[in-house]
Amino acid sequence: MRNTARWAATIGLTATAVCGPLTGSALAEPAHTPASLYAPSALVLTVGRGEAATAAAPERAVTLSCAPAPSGTHPAPGEACAELADADGDFDALGSETGVMCTREYRPVVVTVSGVWQGQRVAYERVFSNDCMKRSHGISVFSF
Amino acid sequence: MRNTARWAATIGLTATAVCGPLTGSALAEPAHTPASLYAPSALVLTVGRGEAATAAAPERAVTLSCAPAPSGTHPAPGEACAELADADGDFDALGSETGVMCTREYRPVVVTVSGVWQGQRVAYERVFSNDCMKRSHGISVFSF
Repeated sequence: MRNTARWAATIGLTATAVCGPLTGSALAEPAHTPASLYAPSALVLTVGRGEAATAAAPERAVTLSCAPAPSGTHPAPGEACAELADADGDFDALGSETGVMCTREYRPVVVTVSGVWQGQRVAYERVFSNDCMKRSHGISVFSF
Repeated sequence: MRNTARWAATIGLTATAVCGPLTGSALAEPAHTPASLYAPSALVLTVGRGEAATAAAPERAVTLSCAPAPSGTHPAPGEACAELADADGDFDALGSETGVMCTREYRPVVVTVSGVWQGQRVAYERVFSNDCMKRSHGISVFSF
């Protein structure tokens, strides 16, 4: 019986030694990895008149969330999220709409994007020489 | 004749005074005031583990839009927008929930807010010493 008790104690200690770190790691996990099943993607896009966001008051601002499902006040969240996924979140790499004719009129608009794309912080700013040029960059993302 | 000239000048000045500002305002409107009926309010709120947003990957991120109606992936957009309106968009001025007991455990969480509040750009960051402290600051805004 004493042997049994000793064994039980040994097994208990071993279990603590093995499981302890596991438990610790499980508790610490949220410190290093996202707590949810998907990396968050939540953005605010703004547009204002001017050559720099610091000088241009945002004329319009929309939200865009792409996970778990496309949503937001953006007029076409589904298309915008699909475009961003295709471009791998690289706003400079958004394709241009083909067959769009824009005048060369210089009336600059500045677009900003802030928030998070697939777990990475985003702070993007780009100036287009006029509103038509903005809309032709990407098809949906900047059409708001 | 001097009277006529004076009248003409008066009429001219009156016309300038009446029409000038109207024309100026109409042309200048998109550059200085929001094009929509309401000032945009669209925010992304994030939370991560750590003492600075630059070092902490966002663990969760939600969108919050407060105009024309509260919406977003924030779990309680209506309450969050009401709290922010009460605090006049000042995130430091959000009231604390009364009767909340938090431990003094130091496990810092960093909250960021970016986007636009009532037409003004927002870039806010705040560190709380633990998650309970974060949740007790404001009642809904940081509860996500």
